[in-house]
Amino acid sequence: MDFKALKEEVYNANLELVKRGLVIYTWGNVSAIDREKQIVVIKPRGIDYDRLTADDMPVVDMEGNTVDGTLLPSVDLDIHLEIYKAFEDVGGIAHTHSTWATAWCQAQRDIPVMGTTHADHFYGVIPCVRHLAEDKVKGEYEKNLGKAICERFKKIRPLEMGAVLTAGHGPFTWGKNADSAVENSVILEEVAKMAKLTQDIAYGNDVALPRYITDKHYTRKHGKNAYFYQEK
Amino acid sequence: MDFKALKEEVYNANLELVKRGLVIYTWGNVSAIDREKQIVVIKPRGIDYDRLTADDMPVVDMEGNTVDGTLLPSVDLDIHLEIYKAFEDVGGIAHTHSTWATAWCQAQRDIPVMGTTHADHFYGVIPCVRHLAEDKVKGEYEKNLGKAICERFKKIRPLEMGAVLTAGHGPFTWGKNADSAVENSVILEEVAKMAKLTQDIAYGNDVALPRYITDKHYTRKHGKNAYFYQEK
Amino acid sequence: MDFKALKEEVYNANLELVKRGLVIYTWGNVSAIDREKQIVVIKPRGIDYDRLTADDMPVVDMEGNTVDGTLLPSVDLDIHLEIYKAFEDVGGIAHTHSTWATAWCQAQRDIPVMGTTHADHFYGVIPCVRHLAEDKVKGEYEKNLGKAICERFKKIRPLEMGAVLTAGHGPFTWGKNADSAVENSVILEEVAKMAKLTQDIAYGNDVALPRYITDKHYTRKHGKNAYFYQEK
Amino acid sequence: MDFKALKEEVYNANLELVKRGLVIYTWGNVSAIDREKQIVVIKPRGIDYDRLTADDMPVVDMEGNTVDGTLLPSVDLDIHLEIYKAFEDVGGIAHTHSTWATAWCQAQRDIPVMGTTHADHFYGVIPCVRHLAEDKVKGEYEKNLGKAICERFKKIRPLEMGAVLTAGHGPFTWGKNADSAVENSVILEEVAKMAKLTQDIAYGNDVALPRYITDKHYTRKHGKNAYFYQEK
Repeated sequence: MDFKALKEEVYNANLELVKRGLVIYTWGNVSAIDREKQIVVIKPRGIDYDRLTADDMPVVDMEGNTVDGTLLPSVDLDIHLEIYKAFEDVGGIAHTHSTWATAWCQAQRDIPVMGTTHADHFYGVIPCVRHLAEDKVKGEYEKNLGKAICERFKKIRPLEMGAVLTAGHGPFTWGKNADSAVENSVILEEVAKMAKLTQDIAYGNDVALPRYITDKHYTRKHGKNAYFYQEK
Repeated sequence: MDFKALKEEVYNANLELVKRGLVIYTWGNVSAIDREKQIVVIKPRGIDYDRLTADDMPVVDMEGNTVDGTLLPSVDLDIHLEIYKAFEDVGGIAHTHSTWATAWCQAQRDIPVMGTTHADHFYGVIPCVRHLAEDKVKGEYEKNLGKAICERFKKIRPLEMGAVLTAGHGPFTWGKNADSAVENSVILEEVAKMAKLTQDIAYGNDVALPRYITDKHYTRKHGKNAYFYQEK
Repeated sequence: MDFKALKEEVYNANLELVKRGLVIYTWGNVSAIDREKQIVVIKPRGIDYDRLTADDMPVVDMEGNTVDGTLLPSVDLDIHLEIYKAFEDVGGIAHTHSTWATAWCQAQRDIPVMGTTHADHFYGVIPCVRHLAEDKVKGEYEKNLGKAICERFKKIRPLEMGAVLTAGHGPFTWGKNADSAVENSVILEEVAKMAKLTQDIAYGNDVALPRYITDKHYTRKHGKNAYFYQEK
Repeated sequence: MDFKALKEEVYNANLELVKRGLVIYTWGNVSAIDREKQIVVIKPRGIDYDRLTADDMPVVDMEGNTVDGTLLPSVDLDIHLEIYKAFEDVGGIAHTHSTWATAWCQAQRDIPVMGTTHADHFYGVIPCVRHLAEDKVKGEYEKNLGKAICERFKKIRPLEMGAVLTAGHGPFTWGKNADSAVENSVILEEVAKMAKLTQDIAYGNDVALPRYITDKHYTRKHGKNAYFYQEK
């Protein structure tokens, strides 16, 4: 099997996180899935970005077994795998410790919809998954965190909400491929920054966007009645 | 008719928003009007800046009908058109989701005059237009938002206040041409940032600039007694 | 008389404000004095930095009359002249609307000494000059603001406190020449940012630096017992 | 004796502080120790980074006497020496006045563990050493500050906590060599920024990370059971 194209996409998406200022050192990881071949390409663990090439990207099967490559996959692999297994529309996943989104994670708070920048891209409150219980952390930590994310999304459509916060940790974002997962990381960071500043300026008063404006903005960009782009 | 010069101006003004860090991806839009020809040039909707050329800029008449070009105009076109129709001195309009100005929009607050940086460029409180009612949003949303902006400016001279905030959305700025509209976006962002920081440092105490200082600073830069520039 | 060297110094110092991110557009101005010739070189008013050359810098006498050059001097010239007349040790002055220092100006608050970064460079509380009365603003505004600054420094040695805030406006800094004036602008901005963040982190509790530490840090860098540099 | 390699390492580590935006002008200093030769290489005091070469780095013995070079060592040398004497595992030390970490120093507060970004790198609360008493400041100030840091670490393993805050001053970080000391400075700054933002977003509520998550994250990156990197 040839994984070259997907490796290139995942490699470039990982570099994009660096260029956009969302990660430093070896932080963060992006993956993408080939649903037909049932394999996932992901950043290798703990290696500086400037020492990586596209060909270094490990390829694993849906149980996390290495199919191609010599480097170990990201330690967060099991989180990615759980999300891919639960959400069949997801084609790419990104994880960062980007400053402002991570601050919301650490504050253990969902990000309320305060404006159209948020509503244009995320259809509703961006959920924050609570801390895992001690036994879940001491056990298969990464897999359990993945399961907790999926559990939280039982009533949320993943492609309408391409972002989740994990308490005390950092955000995960996804999309139809690795590029759109990264784009959601960038936009989430901006939305998180705006939301924090808004809260300060409003002295903590409730300034939630009316639901009908959220609906208007989300549907003018997404779905069958969208008119935001050149074509549908 | 030849629209080359105005297309170049609008194209460069849109790029300037990117260079100044006020927009990412396809966010934001700048337009300019040719009052004689009664046409408006505006950024096309939903296309990455790096795939655009000056010649791609759509040209529309005052009813929004395409006069030149194959790309659809920005979805915010009707907001621009309402402003051009209401304010005959306005030659260019810019719209962004710049971080700090948007935070004031989301907090649904006017920006008070707290300093001379503000008073040098905006003659008084920068107004925030309230949320539209549900029927206005479900109807001709963009046109209704444009009308709401113009309604708010009944007693304000548009060239003395080249900026408006829209609740839950983002700022619109304008000026005698596209360049000055963009310049006002840049300065508004700085004024919005300073105002937020000032509020924090002053523990929310009222630190409004005395009206006589606002008058002094605005009139030393603008109007018949101005002495801020080399010539009047 | 030959003003070439001083023009070069003032020109470069003005550009340094841009490079350090302290000014945008035509904001800000730097001047320097030649005490022997009793002339001041200052940025011309209202011209973009990228259209200026060193030779464009206007040269004025101590009453503000043009001695050399065709461009009008900065509108803030009279503020600079008052400071030069009152403080004979001052060789250069810089004025900016840098974001964080200006926020303290707008909040109308002195910056308390909270840390050694401050004490290393500014010997005590950085004073904020109050708003001028209405008649002072309507009269010779710039000259009166200059006088108010000098009045505030009656009991402060200017070279031990190379910065002042002006309420609702922005900071002025000075030093033995134009370069050190600009350096003080850069450091003031950093000190102002740290002070604001400190106030937030400390929940507004008093965290003033003990006077004996201020003394230690200031005197290890300045004065006859300094040991911070290679030579005294 | 040949100090070339260590001089290069220390020189480059000092430059890295500039590139990462942690220091301006002559601020900050990095050193490294050769335990076998019992010498320390450190940045010279009060010289602009762009005038330095690797060969300019002073070499001193453990009492601070110059062994090689003509420039005086950093005024903070004695702080470095005390740390090297007390902690035999430390191979490099960095000192900055980086903005957000310094704000925590000035607020005189330890940084609580609020997230995994912190727990991945620093094993517990990052301690803030209190102000020295007046006689300690007036006496051998730098040596006394070094001693106070070591005293505070009596029950803390230095390589599990490569950072300390000093009240009203700035952070010191360390590691097995100069590079890892600088890396800790960079990460501390990010952790300090996140912690401040978290506190704001959480309205000051306690959002400490559960101890079992701190343990999990620290030990998956460090120690004999680590699995974060390609090899142990």
